[in-house]
Order: sequence, then C-alpha cells, then structure tokens
Amino acid sequence: MDDDTQSALNDLRMSDKARPLYEAVKRHIAENVVPITEEFFRLGEAREDRWSWAPEQLALLQTAKDKAKAAGLWNFFLPDAETGEGLSNLDYAYIATELGKSPLASESLNCSAPDTGNMEVLERVGTPEQKKQWLEPLLAGEIRSAYAMTEPNVASSDAKNISTTAVLEGNEWVINGEKFYISGAGDPRCKIMICMVRTNPDAPPHGQQSQILVPMDTPGLKILGPMHIFGADHAPAGHMHIKFENARVPRENILLGEGRGFEISQVRLGPGRIHHCMRTIGKAEIALDLMVKRGRSREAFGRELIMLGKNLELVSRARIEIEAMRLMVLKAAKAMDVLGNREARVWVSMVKAMVPEKTCRILDEAIQIHGAAGLSKWFPLAELYADVRHLRFADGPDEVHHMVVGRAELNRH
Amino acid sequence: MDDDTQSALNDLRMSDKARPLYEAVKRHIAENVVPITEEFFRLGEAREDRWSWAPEQLALLQTAKDKAKAAGLWNFFLPDAETGEGLSNLDYAYIATELGKSPLASESLNCSAPDTGNMEVLERVGTPEQKKQWLEPLLAGEIRSAYAMTEPNVASSDAKNISTTAVLEGNEWVINGEKFYISGAGDPRCKIMICMVRTNPDAPPHGQQSQILVPMDTPGLKILGPMHIFGADHAPAGHMHIKFENARVPRENILLGEGRGFEISQVRLGPGRIHHCMRTIGKAEIALDLMVKRGRSREAFGRELIMLGKNLELVSRARIEIEAMRLMVLKAAKAMDVLGNREARVWVSMVKAMVPEKTCRILDEAIQIHGAAGLSKWFPLAELYADVRHLRFADGPDEVHHMVVGRAELNRH
Amino acid sequence: MDDDTQSALNDLRMSDKARPLYEAVKRHIAENVVPITEEFFRLGEAREDRWSWAPEQLALLQTAKDKAKAAGLWNFFLPDAETGEGLSNLDYAYIATELGKSPLASESLNCSAPDTGNMEVLERVGTPEQKKQWLEPLLAGEIRSAYAMTEPNVASSDAKNISTTAVLEGNEWVINGEKFYISGAGDPRCKIMICMVRTNPDAPPHGQQSQILVPMDTPGLKILGPMHIFGADHAPAGHMHIKFENARVPRENILLGEGRGFEISQVRLGPGRIHHCMRTIGKAEIALDLMVKRGRSREAFGRELIMLGKNLELVSRARIEIEAMRLMVLKAAKAMDVLGNREARVWVSMVKAMVPEKTCRILDEAIQIHGAAGLSKWFPLAELYADVRHLRFADGPDEVHHMVVGRAELNRH
Amino acid sequence: MDDDTQSALNDLRMSDKARPLYEAVKRHIAENVVPITEEFFRLGEAREDRWSWAPEQLALLQTAKDKAKAAGLWNFFLPDAETGEGLSNLDYAYIATELGKSPLASESLNCSAPDTGNMEVLERVGTPEQKKQWLEPLLAGEIRSAYAMTEPNVASSDAKNISTTAVLEGNEWVINGEKFYISGAGDPRCKIMICMVRTNPDAPPHGQQSQILVPMDTPGLKILGPMHIFGADHAPAGHMHIKFENARVPRENILLGEGRGFEISQVRLGPGRIHHCMRTIGKAEIALDLMVKRGRSREAFGRELIMLGKNLELVSRARIEIEAMRLMVLKAAKAMDVLGNREARVWVSMVKAMVPEKTCRILDEAIQIHGAAGLSKWFPLAELYADVRHLRFADGPDEVHHMVVGRAELNRH
Repeated sequence: MDDDTQSALNDLRMSDKARPLYEAVKRHIAENVVPITEEFFRLGEAREDRWSWAPEQLALLQTAKDKAKAAGLWNFFLPDAETGEGLSNLDYAYIATELGKSPLASESLNCSAPDTGNMEVLERVGTPEQKKQWLEPLLAGEIRSAYAMTEPNVASSDAKNISTTAVLEGNEWVINGEKFYISGAGDPRCKIMICMVRTNPDAPPHGQQSQILVPMDTPGLKILGPMHIFGADHAPAGHMHIKFENARVPRENILLGEGRGFEISQVRLGPGRIHHCMRTIGKAEIALDLMVKRGRSREAFGRELIMLGKNLELVSRARIEIEAMRLMVLKAAKAMDVLGNREARVWVSMVKAMVPEKTCRILDEAIQIHGAAGLSKWFPLAELYADVRHLRFADGPDEVHHMVVGRAELNRH
Repeated sequence: MDDDTQSALNDLRMSDKARPLYEAVKRHIAENVVPITEEFFRLGEAREDRWSWAPEQLALLQTAKDKAKAAGLWNFFLPDAETGEGLSNLDYAYIATELGKSPLASESLNCSAPDTGNMEVLERVGTPEQKKQWLEPLLAGEIRSAYAMTEPNVASSDAKNISTTAVLEGNEWVINGEKFYISGAGDPRCKIMICMVRTNPDAPPHGQQSQILVPMDTPGLKILGPMHIFGADHAPAGHMHIKFENARVPRENILLGEGRGFEISQVRLGPGRIHHCMRTIGKAEIALDLMVKRGRSREAFGRELIMLGKNLELVSRARIEIEAMRLMVLKAAKAMDVLGNREARVWVSMVKAMVPEKTCRILDEAIQIHGAAGLSKWFPLAELYADVRHLRFADGPDEVHHMVVGRAELNRH
Repeated sequence: MDDDTQSALNDLRMSDKARPLYEAVKRHIAENVVPITEEFFRLGEAREDRWSWAPEQLALLQTAKDKAKAAGLWNFFLPDAETGEGLSNLDYAYIATELGKSPLASESLNCSAPDTGNMEVLERVGTPEQKKQWLEPLLAGEIRSAYAMTEPNVASSDAKNISTTAVLEGNEWVINGEKFYISGAGDPRCKIMICMVRTNPDAPPHGQQSQILVPMDTPGLKILGPMHIFGADHAPAGHMHIKFENARVPRENILLGEGRGFEISQVRLGPGRIHHCMRTIGKAEIALDLMVKRGRSREAFGRELIMLGKNLELVSRARIEIEAMRLMVLKAAKAMDVLGNREARVWVSMVKAMVPEKTCRILDEAIQIHGAAGLSKWFPLAELYADVRHLRFADGPDEVHHMVVGRAELNRH
Repeated sequence: MDDDTQSALNDLRMSDKARPLYEAVKRHIAENVVPITEEFFRLGEAREDRWSWAPEQLALLQTAKDKAKAAGLWNFFLPDAETGEGLSNLDYAYIATELGKSPLASESLNCSAPDTGNMEVLERVGTPEQKKQWLEPLLAGEIRSAYAMTEPNVASSDAKNISTTAVLEGNEWVINGEKFYISGAGDPRCKIMICMVRTNPDAPPHGQQSQILVPMDTPGLKILGPMHIFGADHAPAGHMHIKFENARVPRENILLGEGRGFEISQVRLGPGRIHHCMRTIGKAEIALDLMVKRGRSREAFGRELIMLGKNLELVSRARIEIEAMRLMVLKAAKAMDVLGNREARVWVSMVKAMVPEKTCRILDEAIQIHGAAGLSKWFPLAELYADVRHLRFADGPDEVHHMVVGRAELNRH
C-alpha cells in the first residue's frame, strides 16, 4: 500500500456532499419516523393474526417512505452504483449510526437488512432480467427479500459445511435441504430469497457453493415456523425455519455462475456487516443515554444511583468503548471505499468481532442500573440486547471473525 | 466464634438422614417429572387463554405432587420446623441443585419460590389464625402465594425507599401504591400475597416498614398487567404489575408487628436467596452439559467445535466455576444451619452476588457454542439466561450484596 | 461546536509536512538508535556506581542526538511554539508511536518525559529569564529535568491534597514536604525540577497550589533514595523519593503566579498524557509482534503454540484493541490541535484511562505465551509491563480519568 | 465412586489431631518468624556478594528452625510417610495458607518448595541408599535441593518435548542439555537436583523420559546465571539457567527406573501444586488486608478511598473469590487424601488453573488502590505479584491445566 493510500485511510470525515443528507436524515427520523413508531408497534401488538401486517401499519410506514423518497433520502446504502443514489461506505456509516437508534428508520429509507445486501448483490452481479424482476421493485421499496445461509443441521459458521443441495435437472435447479434463522422470510411482503446451496460437491472446498434466487412462492419451499431469539419471534417478519423439498427454480436463477457462492459472499457480506455494526453503535448510544438518565433520576442510600459504586466508571467505560467502536467502524468503512471490499475484509472482521460483543456488555450494564425494569418492555434495553446478542452469530460468529483477523496477523510476519 | 463452630462450618457433607431423600428426589424427577414436562408446556402453549392453566396441565402436575407427597418428598425446604418435614439448609442445598435442572421439579415437591419463603415467614412469625388460614393450604400445596416488595417508582434496591403506604383506619389497613415484578401473582391459584408497606413514616429509617398479608381478592388490589423478562411474560404465573387503590385488609393481617418489616426480611430472604442459588447451580450444570454435547456433535474447519479455539478452555473454566459456586453455596447453607440466618447473612450475600453473575456468563458461552440455535426454543439456554439474568435483581441486586460483603470486610478491621 | 470543527476532528491524517519527518525518524531509529541500544545498556549494567552514567554511554547517546539534531529531528513535541520546530499533536502522535518501540529513541530526539512537559510549561508560561536559564539548555538537550507532584503521605490522586508547603519569607519561598516517584530526579544530568506546592492554604481548594522551579542543587532538597517498580530502581535516572527541609528558592521561581498550579497542570498534563499513550501503543505493537513470533516458533501437543487454544483469538483481540487505541489517541491529539488543551481534556482522559490498562493486558498475554521466559530479561515484556503498569498511576490514576469522563457524560444531559 | 467416598470428599474440616499443630504454627510464625524477617532481608540486601548468605542470616533462620523442630512443627507436608510426621493434605492445606503469609515461614518448618516435592519423591520411590544420602539431610533441614524440568529451547509445557538427554555409558549416565528457571539452584546450600531427562528416545511418547538425581557439584553441570522475574533475580536462591555438558552421574541415580519420568511427575506434582495454591491463598489474604487498610487510611475527593467508585465492590469480590479458592483448595487436598494423587489430578488442575490467576487480579487491584506506592518495596504487593504471576507457569502453565480439566469433562460424557 503506498503512502497516499495509507494516509487516505485516516481521513474519516464525512464528505461535503453527505453533510446535508446526514442532517436531512436526522430531521426525517425526528419528524417522520419517531412520531409514528409507537402507534406502528401498538397496531401490531393488537393484531390477532400476528403473521401479517395491519393495513394501517403499512400505511403509516408508506407515508414515511414517501416523504423520504421525496426528500432524496433513498437507497443511499449503495456506493458507486449505476443507480446513482449511493453514498460512500464512510458517509453511510455516519447515517447508519442514526438509523440504529430507531427501529423503523432504516426501512423508511429503504435501507433495511437483508434487502440492502441483496440489492447490492443484484446490482453487482445480477443479469438485466434479474435486475428488472427483483432489483427494481426492491429499490422502489415495493417488495422485501431474504437471505438464506444458516442451516440447522451443520455448523454453518464454516460455510463449506452448507449442505442444502441444488441439482440441475433439465433447465431447473432442484433444491433440497433446511435453513433457519432466515430473517424477514415471514414477512408477507417478502417475495424473493437469495439462497446459498451446494451445487458442485466434487469441486474443491471453496468452489462447491453457489447462490441462487428462489422466489418465496416456489412450490416445495415450506416455512416450517419461526425461530425465536430469547423467546421473541419478531412476527410478522420473523426469523424463519425453512425446508426445501424438491423446490424447483429456473436454471438462470443462479447468480454469477456455478461454484461462485463464496465470491458473492465477499461482495455481499462486507458492507452488510459494516451496516450492522454502524447501527449497533447507535444502539450503544441509546444504552448509555438511558443508563445516565436512569442513574440520575433515582436515589438509593442517600445518593443518585449514578454516583453509587462503580456506576460512574461504567458510564466512562461505555463512552470510551463507544468512541473507539465508532472510529473503528468509520475506518473499516473508509477501508472499503479506498481498498475495496476484498482488501478491507480484515477491517470488516475486526469491527464485526468487536462491536456486537462490546455493545452487549454496555446494554447489560444499562439493564443492571435499571433494576428489573431494565428487562421489561418499558425500556428498549432487553429487546436491543436480544437483537445485538443475535448479531454475534449473524454474518459469521465472532469466533470466525477472530480467526480471520488472527490469521491475517500471522501473515504479516 | 469458637474453634468447634468454625470447624463445623467446613463439614459440608449431606447428613445420613438426607441421603435416601436425595436419591429419592432424583428418582422422582426422573420418573415422575421429566416424563410429563414436555406435555405440560405443550398444553400451555396451545391455550387460547394464556392467563389460566389447562385443567390437563394441573392434573399432570397434581399426579406428580401426589406421588411426591406419598413418598415423603414434601416441604422439606423448612429447617427445624414444627411441621417436622424440614431438612437442614445444607441437606436441602444438595436437593435444590437437582430441582434447578427441571422446570417443574420444585413445584412437584411443594418447594417453589416464592411459596417457600412465604411459608417460612408464616411458620416463624404467623399467628395461629394466620397459619390456619394460609400456611396450612400452602403446606398442602392447595394454593400458591406471592411476595410484593419491588416498586416501579423508586429504587427499591434500597428497601428504605419502599413507598407503598398502609394507613390504619379503624380496624383496617388501607393500602395505596404500586408494586411490580411480583412473580406468580398472575397464577389463578395464587390466593395470598405478603406485601412490604410503609406504616410508620415518622419512625427511624429501619422501623418504618411492615409486612402485611393481602389476599389476592382484596378489593382495590388491581393487577395492571404482566411485566416482561426479555419479552417473555411467563403466563399464566407472570411477574405482575400491581396497583393498590385503597385496598383494605384487617388490622390483624400485619405480620409480627408494625415497623418490623426489615426484621421479617432477615427471616425470609436468607434461605430464599440460598434456594435460588442452589437451583442456579443446577442450571449452570445444564449449560455445561449442553456446551459439551453440542461441541462434540458438530464439526467446523476440520475439527469438533469443542476442540476449536478457546472452547475447551471455556469448558474447563465453567467446570471450575461451577465447583467453586457449589462449595460456596454449601458453605453458606451450612453457615445458616450453624450460625443462624442473621450471623450467616454475609455468606448469603456472597453467594447471591457470585452465583447468578457467573452462571449468566456460563450460559452465554453455552449459547455462543450453539450458534443462533442457542437463542432459540430448541434449547433451554436462552430461557435459562433470562431467568438467571433476572435473579441478579431478585432479592436484592448484586450491587447491594457486594455492599454487604464489602462493609463486613471493613468491619473485620 | 460548529459542523466544520466537528468534521475537522475526524481528519486523522498526518500532515504533508510531517510525512518526511516521520520517515526520517523511523530511519534515524533504525540507523542511529537501534544499533547502539544493546551496548548502551550493557555499559550501564557493568557499572559499579549504578547512580551515574558511564561516559561511554553518554557519548553513544550524544552521537545519536547530534545526528538527530543535524537531521532536523529535534524538539518537535512542541506544537505552535515560538521556537518553531514543533509539530501538531496529531503529527507528533504518529512519531511518538515509533518512539515507544525503542527505549532510547525519545531521548535521542530530545523528546523524553518529563522534559517535554516541562519545556512546554516553560515555553508557555515562563518569564524570559526562566526561559534563558532553563528552557534553552533543555531545548538544547544539555540538561534534564524532573516534575514533582506525587507525595507519599496523602492521596495525591486528588491534587487538592498536595501538602508540600512553600512559604514566602522575604524574597524566598521556603519549601517543606516530601515527594516520591519523581522520575529522572536521580539522573546526574537533571538540574531543575518543577514542583507542585501549597502556597495559599486559605484560598478556595483549586487556588491553593502553585508550581515552582527548584534547582536540584538547592540546599534542603534531599534525595532520600530511589522508589522501585516491581523491584527495579531504573538507576541512574530513578524514580526518586525526595524531602524538602527548608529548601529555599528565589521568589521569582514561581511559575505564572501564586495559586495557579492547577492552571499550569492543564497546560502540562494534556500533551504529556497523550505522549505517554502514543508511546504505549508502540509498546503494545512490540508485545503483539513477540506474541506472534514466539507462538510460531514453538510446538506443543503437535501444533504451533499460536494455533493452540485461545492463542489465535488473543492475537486477533490484541490487533483489534491496538487499532482502536491508535485511532482514539489520534483523535485525542487532533482534538487538542483543533479545540485546545482545555476543551480536549475529556478526550485526553479517555485515552489515558484506556491505553495503559488495555496494553497491560496485551503485555500479560504476550508474557503468558512465552512461558517463564516471558518474565525474564531475554525479552522486553516484563520490563514493558512494569513500565506500562506504572503509567496507570502516572499523571493521574485510571480512576480519576474515568471520573472526568463520567462527569462529562453526565453534563451532556 | 461410591456414596460414602463421595460424601467424604465434602468433609473439609481440619482433623482434631491437626488443630493444636495449626495453632502452634500460627504462634511459631508470630513469635519466631515475623520478628526476624525484616532483619533477615536487611542483612541480605547489605551484602556485597549477593550469591551467598550472610552467616548472620543463616544463624537467624537456624534459630527459628530449631524452635520449630523442638516444638514438633517439622516436615509435616508429607502425608502417610514412614517418617511419621506427616499430616493429611487437607490438614496441611490449612497450615500452608498461614505459611504463605510470611516469606520465611515455610523454610522455618522445613516445608519449602521444591524440597517438599523432592523429599516426597525420594520418600516414595527412592532406594535405601538414595534415602540415606539425600532424603535424610533434606528431612533434617541440613541441605536444600532443586528440581529441573523447564527448558529454554522447547515448549516444555508439553513435557514430551523435554530434550535434555541422558545416555548410558558404562555405569554412568551422560547428561547434555539446558534447563532454566531452576528455582533454588543458586543457593549455596543446594546440594542435589532431580532432573527430568530423555533416556529412551525410541519409546512411545510417555515412556521416553526419566528423572535422575544430579548432585550440584557434578562436573559438567554449569550454572550459566540467574533468570529474572520482573527484573528480580532472587539471589542467592535464584531461578538458575543451567547447562549440562557431558555431566556424568552413576547409573543408580535414576529414580524408579528408565522411562518412568511421567509416573514420578504424578507423585510429585500433585501435592506440590496444591502446596503452592494453599500458600497463594495466604498471599491473597495479605492483598485484601492491605487493600482495606490503605483504603481506610487515605482520603480523596472528600471520602475514604475505600468508599470511592468501585473500591468497596472490589473488596467484596476479593473476599468472595478468596473464600471460593479456599474451599476449592481444601476440596482438592481432600480428594488427594481420599482418592489418591492420580484420581485427584483433575481437582489439582482445577485449583492450579484457578488460584494463581485470580490471585494476580486481587494483587493487581490492591496495587491500584495504593497508587504508585503499591509498586514499591514499601509494600509486599509488587513482589507478591511477581511471585504469583510466575506461578502461572510453574508446574505447568494455566493452559495445560485447563486442557486437563476440559478433557476430563469431555470424558464424563
């Protein structure tokens, strides 16, 4: 790496172009998203059929989406895209931190996982037909999508273990196997899934897997039910358990080509992991904010809670870790901008292994200062904890990312 | 403390009397409880009215209870009781560890929280009338009970903050205030609650509180709804949010006497805290067991999961911590037997501050080795985590127990 | 803070001006410092009189200093100084990280603690006479200096406790009291000390202290002996224990004015703390480097040590923490450049509380992977550990910095 | 394991026989050891020839030894020995905790490492001639000994790597190789060393090593110099670096038989590890005691140090961990008594992996509360830290013990 590149990696400023967008996003969240959030979820909880949306919910959300689109706050997760809206990963990092603070903000800007990753894959490697059929409605926010990697029957942290098979019969791939924790696959608006399958069992280990488009209404694709995270099923989006029994999709649904599944993961997972981490920092900020608020509003043993025992030091440690995480995420985003996803992958693994684990600890400490109420629905802390705890598995468990970072360090020697 | 007492504290053997009971309890769990557990919960989940029990559920449980009673495995949480069934705290500790491994075991022996603590209080300080009305049906396993301490509006970790008031009007106490996280108060079988109230606001800080019996059907006692723990409401038992609006109970419902609430807490909380910790060790054993089983049944990167990275060291650390926790709980139980609850209170605080925190870590590591499935309902780990995480608040948060232990250490100097 | 300032804080690039200097420093260390280091310390160890330097040692060092001065690599720790050599704090941060990797590098560039802090104070608040007498020879590298804050008889972490008194008698301050851990005061080349004294015991707490220049040959200034750090006395520089018995210095030796001691600390401690942290990151890099080298060069149980158990994860965690610390130090340095020392003080406290503690852990893990040899003189690890462990007290213990950060967080609310 | 054995493991009481000895040891330390300790070390520090003892030192120590012997407090580390003085491991555990609090106490009772382990080996497997020549003077406290296992050139944590060779030539073993960190080998009173050597390179891995007696005056045994621990060399006992260059010892010096080195390690290392851990708990007690004393004697920010921030919680956590460690060590000692060294080895590994690591943390926290003085020679903390840190390698590094415990857990399944 030459000196100029090296130096560029440390310019972590938001671009001038992005600054007004960043401000506009914050305004949009405050004006269009926060005011509808409580009602949105209340409407959902009141529903008898938990696995569908109330029309009033979708209407509320659509209004926010329309406002965002009208304001040009749309799809900017996609750097250097033909579609033109995209921001650099660095600029997007600043925005995503704000998105993490509000449960509806991402979707209101069409920037939700796993759609963002799926759109990025389609934009990078999709055929014109695939783009027309799936990318366009996704970019328009008309449909949603899922990504099917994890399997219940193998240690899929080692992606080489993926055992769902796709076998070519005539002009169709016939898919058999099981996947689980497929986020968003329960959403009635979810129409398409990108699925990791084994197509070439006789190839070398990294050439056996492919990624393939599977429409949700494909016969043979059966949703067995929702998986839970600490007891919650996140209906109606869900984290679904899915079975493929001779599910058939057209030959051309394969992405990029047979045996190129790992290659696509490189495209996909880099930014996706970063987006998660960016949003997670917003969640850590919420935890710290609540920790301080609660600690100042209650007294015990004659002092404010926040001044008792180790509490103030926990506040300090949370602030220090948050700032360190923020800088690391900005640097990883910048590395992707400057070096490309492949060269930046160790930076991505660094933040993926760092941010959810540390944020879980901060959330846990915020819970503790709230007393039992910290575990209740009166505060978002327990739900955030469950969410971020799950992130320590999503897109690769911590252990795999530490392996990537550790091996890279050995290779420097 | 004389040398013989000091020495006696280190005899952590189960008594000869308890050995056959311990074996009988293990047999009872294996034969009468484990076989009904899955069906019991399945029946519950299938119910439309989540806040009542299916008659079939209660029938299943009753059969197990009848068998336990017939076998003499009943009520032995109560040391040195007039009723005669009780075991020493030490003997009970061995048994409670086994109870912790099965969600229905405690109730099948009439040894569930908070009934055990409530029965102990009634047995120790209740009047003959109170015993007849409430202790007898509790000892018979015919009704259940609740204990109302924690309040939503103050830092009730400092019990001096308790703000629910009881004011004497004529021959009745008039109660006003709010309580929350009142475990078991949603259970239709719950008939009586022991409630901490402020009766003497002008007394010195430790003499303002009293404990009072409040039948669940008292007018003015309103259940506002369930509190959640990581999103779960534990229906139909629940952790209820309760409001008292001019709830009236007879003058003689006060326990032991006005302003003696803290005194009763000493009676009550010692064994209760120990029982929780004993059972928690059983839960840590389950976590370790599952960690090993999962780690041996899956392969990644060419090796069994358990042999990858730090996993085997985590197994070792879990085993070491479990054995250390077990000995500490046995010692605290023995201290209660030898020294009495009051003198043993620092030992009780030591295990209360130690066991749930360390067990949370072991559970978290067991979850991690399971991948996302560790958070699902396919394994008991996430539910156990929520349960044990909540214990870090129940009967006093960790911080208060560390304060007790720390101050005792200062006083030795 | 306006948006442009906010944005500027995230431009962590080295300036174009500093890049050639940075490269020149690395070359200078490699060519002029590393080759003399072993001999320098060997000469020292061979000496009978441990509390003086061998002339050959000083000659070796002088050669390196001359080369640095000739190459323009001199005194650039001093930002925006009249003297003109200074670099920004950010630029200096990059250089200081390199200096931390070699025990003689800092002094070879006249950038050693506590001289740098003392020179900065003299440059900022010294009178022309003080500058002539003390700053000039310090800038020229002809003498060395000490800074006397910590006292053995009070908790001097709370600087308001400082109890060494200076009382004006006629035209002289008469100083009485004790100081300890006065680094470098044993060095025969040390000629001047800046000393924190209480001059105004009746003023408000933050106005009682002053800083005063005390020449080392002042009668009444007695060096009682060296303090140790893990048994080492660091002769001949030492961390000295000093007693003042009616030590008299001229009235004009007071810096800035009576009662302004805390004000000077703000000037002094900011950059000094940052310099320590910068160098500490260089030490963490050495630890990680040795950890990997050792782990790859030995085998046990059939595998390279680095591939056993948690070792590779420790490598990854060390790399992640090092990068996070580096970014935090760069940001704190930039904050000093952009906001000034006063406004940047929370950033300074953040890195001061973060870097030594985390580096101690990394060093400890590097030691562990070396086996007993990690504690020996065959590797620099034990000495680095002692050094960095001591940093957790120097310029304020971790706890005080966490208090600063915690309180600042409360103030944001 | 039958129920009675299982039960016996939990009787952790000191025996009636040992109680008066335990009291006598405490009295002996208070009356005969503590009063000479300061002078003993002062005499040592004043010496020019650091690698010998002052005759006055040895005289002081001899007086204490004579008093101990006269009082029957001698050699009781040796359970069930023919010599008759021995206590059970459990009884000895109580005594060793007291020994750990004073640096001269162990030797005053002839209970120092590594002599205790060496005497135990000689007593168990020595020939009558070996006993007469070496065991008798060791039991009499007339000579001292060393144990040579660790090697500088291999990862000797895996004892199968041991590379020092002994080749039979005629009636002599010819030894070549290097050992280091051989504690006590610098002591002029050290006369004999038990050395682990490879004698059967062609045997299966666990049958290649033997243990052999090497008198210190054997030609070809060269002491290259002392190894350091955090800069200290512990002269004159030292942790020596030793080279064997064709060192010849008689054929009959081999212990137990060729290829039985690992077998002897089992005999030796069990109790030795336990003794270390027992003494370490005494050191943790000192740390906690000093932490409280310092924390109560200083004020900062208007409160006693001990009441600031997390300090009181650290006191509580230290007390909890100390009690947990104590019970674990007692249990491991009891397991050796009841089950024998071999069956108890997992318990031994548990405490060996647990106690030094946790005690290091407690010592580190005690240091922190002392400020810089915690690292000085004014308090024993830094020296204790260095000592206990070294224990994390001695008799097997933590990692190897975790491996033993982890594998045993897997085998239970």
